[in-house]
Amino acid sequence: MDNDNPRLDTYYAELRQHHLGPLWNSIGRLMTHEPRPRAEAHLWRWSDVRRYVMESGTLVVPDRGGERRVIFFANPGFQELEPWGWGAMTNTLYAGVQLLLPGEKAPSHRHNQNAIRFVLEGRGAYTIVEGERIDMEPGDFLITPAGLWHDHVHAGTEPMLWFDCLDIPLLYQLGVMFFENYPDYNQPITKPSGYTEKRYQTSGLRPIQDHRTVYAPQAVFKWRSTQDALRRLAELEPDPYDGYGVEYVNPATGEAAGITIGAAMQLLPPGHHTQAHRHVHSTIYHVFRGSGYSVINGVRFAWHTGDTFVVPNWVWHEHHNTGTEDAYVFSTHDAPVMERLGLEREESYPDGYQPVTGEYPG
Amino acid sequence: MDNDNPRLDTYYAELRQHHLGPLWNSIGRLMTHEPRPRAEAHLWRWSDVRRYVMESGTLVVPDRGGERRVIFFANPGFQELEPWGWGAMTNTLYAGVQLLLPGEKAPSHRHNQNAIRFVLEGRGAYTIVEGERIDMEPGDFLITPAGLWHDHVHAGTEPMLWFDCLDIPLLYQLGVMFFENYPDYNQPITKPSGYTEKRYQTSGLRPIQDHRTVYAPQAVFKWRSTQDALRRLAELEPDPYDGYGVEYVNPATGEAAGITIGAAMQLLPPGHHTQAHRHVHSTIYHVFRGSGYSVINGVRFAWHTGDTFVVPNWVWHEHHNTGTEDAYVFSTHDAPVMERLGLEREESYPDGYQPVTGEYPG
Amino acid sequence: MDNDNPRLDTYYAELRQHHLGPLWNSIGRLMTHEPRPRAEAHLWRWSDVRRYVMESGTLVVPDRGGERRVIFFANPGFQELEPWGWGAMTNTLYAGVQLLLPGEKAPSHRHNQNAIRFVLEGRGAYTIVEGERIDMEPGDFLITPAGLWHDHVHAGTEPMLWFDCLDIPLLYQLGVMFFENYPDYNQPITKPSGYTEKRYQTSGLRPIQDHRTVYAPQAVFKWRSTQDALRRLAELEPDPYDGYGVEYVNPATGEAAGITIGAAMQLLPPGHHTQAHRHVHSTIYHVFRGSGYSVINGVRFAWHTGDTFVVPNWVWHEHHNTGTEDAYVFSTHDAPVMERLGLEREESYPDGYQPVTGEYPG
Amino acid sequence: MDNDNPRLDTYYAELRQHHLGPLWNSIGRLMTHEPRPRAEAHLWRWSDVRRYVMESGTLVVPDRGGERRVIFFANPGFQELEPWGWGAMTNTLYAGVQLLLPGEKAPSHRHNQNAIRFVLEGRGAYTIVEGERIDMEPGDFLITPAGLWHDHVHAGTEPMLWFDCLDIPLLYQLGVMFFENYPDYNQPITKPSGYTEKRYQTSGLRPIQDHRTVYAPQAVFKWRSTQDALRRLAELEPDPYDGYGVEYVNPATGEAAGITIGAAMQLLPPGHHTQAHRHVHSTIYHVFRGSGYSVINGVRFAWHTGDTFVVPNWVWHEHHNTGTEDAYVFSTHDAPVMERLGLEREESYPDGYQPVTGEYPG
Ligand SMILES: [Fe+2]
Ligand SMILES: [Fe+2]
Ligand SMILES: [Fe+2]
Ligand SMILES: [Fe+2]
Ligand SMILES: [Fe+2]
Ligand SMILES: [Fe+2]
Ligand SMILES: [Fe+2]
Ligand SMILES: [Fe+2]
Repeated sequence: MDNDNPRLDTYYAELRQHHLGPLWNSIGRLMTHEPRPRAEAHLWRWSDVRRYVMESGTLVVPDRGGERRVIFFANPGFQELEPWGWGAMTNTLYAGVQLLLPGEKAPSHRHNQNAIRFVLEGRGAYTIVEGERIDMEPGDFLITPAGLWHDHVHAGTEPMLWFDCLDIPLLYQLGVMFFENYPDYNQPITKPSGYTEKRYQTSGLRPIQDHRTVYAPQAVFKWRSTQDALRRLAELEPDPYDGYGVEYVNPATGEAAGITIGAAMQLLPPGHHTQAHRHVHSTIYHVFRGSGYSVINGVRFAWHTGDTFVVPNWVWHEHHNTGTEDAYVFSTHDAPVMERLGLEREESYPDGYQPVTGEYPG
Repeated sequence: MDNDNPRLDTYYAELRQHHLGPLWNSIGRLMTHEPRPRAEAHLWRWSDVRRYVMESGTLVVPDRGGERRVIFFANPGFQELEPWGWGAMTNTLYAGVQLLLPGEKAPSHRHNQNAIRFVLEGRGAYTIVEGERIDMEPGDFLITPAGLWHDHVHAGTEPMLWFDCLDIPLLYQLGVMFFENYPDYNQPITKPSGYTEKRYQTSGLRPIQDHRTVYAPQAVFKWRSTQDALRRLAELEPDPYDGYGVEYVNPATGEAAGITIGAAMQLLPPGHHTQAHRHVHSTIYHVFRGSGYSVINGVRFAWHTGDTFVVPNWVWHEHHNTGTEDAYVFSTHDAPVMERLGLEREESYPDGYQPVTGEYPG
Repeated sequence: MDNDNPRLDTYYAELRQHHLGPLWNSIGRLMTHEPRPRAEAHLWRWSDVRRYVMESGTLVVPDRGGERRVIFFANPGFQELEPWGWGAMTNTLYAGVQLLLPGEKAPSHRHNQNAIRFVLEGRGAYTIVEGERIDMEPGDFLITPAGLWHDHVHAGTEPMLWFDCLDIPLLYQLGVMFFENYPDYNQPITKPSGYTEKRYQTSGLRPIQDHRTVYAPQAVFKWRSTQDALRRLAELEPDPYDGYGVEYVNPATGEAAGITIGAAMQLLPPGHHTQAHRHVHSTIYHVFRGSGYSVINGVRFAWHTGDTFVVPNWVWHEHHNTGTEDAYVFSTHDAPVMERLGLEREESYPDGYQPVTGEYPG
Repeated sequence: MDNDNPRLDTYYAELRQHHLGPLWNSIGRLMTHEPRPRAEAHLWRWSDVRRYVMESGTLVVPDRGGERRVIFFANPGFQELEPWGWGAMTNTLYAGVQLLLPGEKAPSHRHNQNAIRFVLEGRGAYTIVEGERIDMEPGDFLITPAGLWHDHVHAGTEPMLWFDCLDIPLLYQLGVMFFENYPDYNQPITKPSGYTEKRYQTSGLRPIQDHRTVYAPQAVFKWRSTQDALRRLAELEPDPYDGYGVEYVNPATGEAAGITIGAAMQLLPPGHHTQAHRHVHSTIYHVFRGSGYSVINGVRFAWHTGDTFVVPNWVWHEHHNTGTEDAYVFSTHDAPVMERLGLEREESYPDGYQPVTGEYPG
């Protein structure tokens, strides 16, 4: 296109004054040939994250307004933006580590963001979701669907840490957030003890009353069961790209645990090296246990227990357990969004493994 | 309508000759005000059924052509029809008890009928479905979706009996059956031992590879797990009409185990008496364990372990465990058909319980 | 299987007494290798049908109980059954020709059967569906979804004939019919004149209020528009098996006009000869205009304006317009049932055209 | 929450260095109580827009790289962002006015953004979509689904202007764009002339070949037909919030014309004043013909033919035709996105009409 006309400069300035814009000089950046997510591949060391999380326990307490004591991951690609990096770990997903100290309570609220939690450390705290008390232990996965009242209470004696993932950046960018405080600080517990575990525990058995259930009726997925499931899977053939893995799904519908958020747990035995692929959806990984590395678009990211790293949209990635123990890697992703909007694609890396062209310094 | 015209008799005869019919004199029987299924409420005593099933073991052997040694339930409302009562237990469902003796094999075939099985007695036999060996134990529920190769082999030492349910009358009446023999007598086992149990066991955990699964990937639901699930449910509130019950569903989609057949297992504690309701779908009950009675449109049907009874479409029914042990009642139904065709309805009995106006003599 | 045992005869008799049956000796007829629908290929001459329909006008009048003055097609394969052939034209579909004389009214009722109508002769009558008056002209297609009140009124001066198709045999065999009389003889007209035609006429334009419409909101499809649509299609490539054809669909959802009944209109130009194929669903054809023949499993069925013929499930069929004018062939089918139950299949005839091995004598 | 601790300042700075963030001090802005879209209500005068669009014809020509000569609307709330306001008219939708001069061609490409077009002025240009030539006239609505090759050619004698709407900001923020150039400058025309109009023109009639169509098969919706449809609707009751309106839908599925973009045309007769409501989805209005005003969250926006204005998410809005002619208002919206992600809500304004508290100065 002819962009040499001397009038163009003043023309562009006038357009700007009239809140107009010229497509021809921005189309290349607006409609890129391949995905160029603002989110970048990045890794956070657990020692750093945990130190700041623990210190936050001395600086603030959970209360109305602040609601939760969480240190969230601020993707470098978004970080300069206000409010603080839009809470973006990927273009759609927020993730953080929440701390609740013995005796503390986080106030009850509800919102149209979907939330999932994965417990990292501690015992004795519980989440209340629509009157159901859900006790939390390391490795447990919890789902809090959009629109349900929820709050946290710590009845134990040691600090409690868990990983939170919400679709905050997606809803922030769509500009469609709803948030409401529960009239009281906490909601009452109205469901019998162990409600979810009494109703859902065995694959394929759905309580008759849930025949027409519309939202996720299984509030918790216990670590012991998840680990057992992965060990059983590990006796079979691995998935070429994900090793031995399970998706956490709504057992009443088979859909992702959240409408907009998927989640999975993978087991990589010692020496296991998955093949590289890429897909439109983005993924956040948290190393629950183990050590190894991932290659993300040619860059080697070494990881250890507690580290968190992010694989943005459409970048090649592969994982390698270089330790001597089974590695367990938890992940959340936005495949449900991409699938519902007709945007998902997937590609295998031609030669299986990428050449390593760089090393993440972190 | 005026049906007095003397010409009408010859007119009707002429219509018949021309393969025509007068709607006005049959509409009342063709389009009844409420469902009038041909299937009738009926109960079969286990002592009778088992005696004939066991005797069949001395009379015939499973082989090509006959395929399976099954005594099926011939609903009195259909029984006079040929071929033999169309295999109808309800207007859509066939049910029978299959016997396989030690050392026997039933040949491999596939068909567009859906099948489920529920194991009654014996150990050591297994079903092969698309290369997967599924060992059968009493109380196990198995699913064989339409279109998959399947055959049975007995490697044990005692007679093996199980309950079969298929959508034979539905497909028979639709006139759309496909059936094919496997080239060999039996198919080879190609999947690793314990395939289903290694892949599906815990609620809400789906192997990553099954993200886009289209048919029921869980081949078996073990009795031990089902019983445990029911006992946990029994600590909560019962369903008013079904007591404590679980539906067997496809864990990848939440749909009924078969496209056209639903199945459930109910636990009724001693003294438990469900309230009466009715629904368009029909149900076949098999008393796995326990004794009690059901009231079906006012008639009391007493039942004991092993008895099978049928609740046709749109009849009032309620169940009462009058024994001293937990009763376990297995059932299959055609709700998936009614729901897919927009035909399902449900109604609660106004006063909860029906007056008993008759006694099933059986 | 060993069927030579002398005990078998008495054994079978005892089974029958106990309402039981032996699968092995009926499986071959219950689960056939390919579809064996009871419905047979058959053709009804318009001269016969019309004569009896017109005579029915002298014999009976529409009134409560008889409801409608319809002569229905009684497929020879079903005809001996009571009530009168179950109203079966195919295994799922009923079809008939209704006569309403000037000044007559047919009473208002509703039922869970779906109904479609196709107008053959006359003017001046109208159907009322949920308060909407729908005027009927030859070639018009009308849809009366399950559950809606409907009645017919004749305000014109000449006999009015139309083709009705309902899912009566399907619901009869499922045993799940509901039928209700409107409190008055006719319902009041509450919607403005020309309601459907004012709301739906142009492809792809849906009234904003119908954004979440659940049932068929377009009550009528006018012949003039349908003919125009076919003539436009005839300038493009024909479908190999159906020539130039349109399906009547719910414009708000794209689904078949009825939940269980599909319908179409085909244009075959002079000399047009479609290729042969077969499919699981069955089809009823009514020759609206033209003459030619169809080959059904090798048998040639010659047809002329007004003739009705049936293509049962899974039989080869092809159509040939041997006249000098465009042929317009209306049809209804049960593909929606087969698709919803996962039963549909389709096959092309290997050589395009079947050898003609017989001639329908009709 | 306690935010007074003196350590907090350095703590926050350290967090920032480690690419971490504190949820408690940003949650109120990230998770607002009600939607706070970045997009603002705004109106663009046609005289301004048209002047700059026409001048662009003297400054640039369409070619590879720039691709299209379009002046897009840069919502003031987004405008400072680079690349140029992300092309955002609302948080999800881009809109602009494209100019093609006689003899010009715009190159062929495809992308995973969905596009719709609405023709404003001129005749003689056409769009090619997957080999189909679609002639464009004022008032015509065209759909170019994601993934299809498309280009524009002007074979006429007067400047051609049309309104474009794409989901650019949505995909930009998701970071998932794909874009590909066609090997040649333009693609060949392979479909017969008038393809869409021969296939789709009448409501409810779908070519038999499109029984399992997956994407929008109707490429164009002609103005004449749309206007006629609206005039017919105007004889019935208006929608309280939208007056007389039609949605442009995929006639094969009833879904919105694009997977992510809905579109509608409304007719407001002289004096018509719709009631106020709000909804989560955002809407872009282009006044095709007429004059009046809209009240958006209390501010009166007067509009005339050619003006474009935007109603962001969850703001009250109502429309009033104050002219003496019928007003025709075209609009596009992102309701499909909100519905697919479970985010849609709607509310009626309590008193029907808002008090006017301000006047848009534009
Ligand atoms: Fe929350
Ligand atoms: Fe991946
Ligand atoms: Fe079988
Ligand atoms: Fe029931
Ligand atoms: Fe009727
Ligand atoms: Fe056909
Ligand atoms: Fe484009
Ligand atoms: Fe609106």
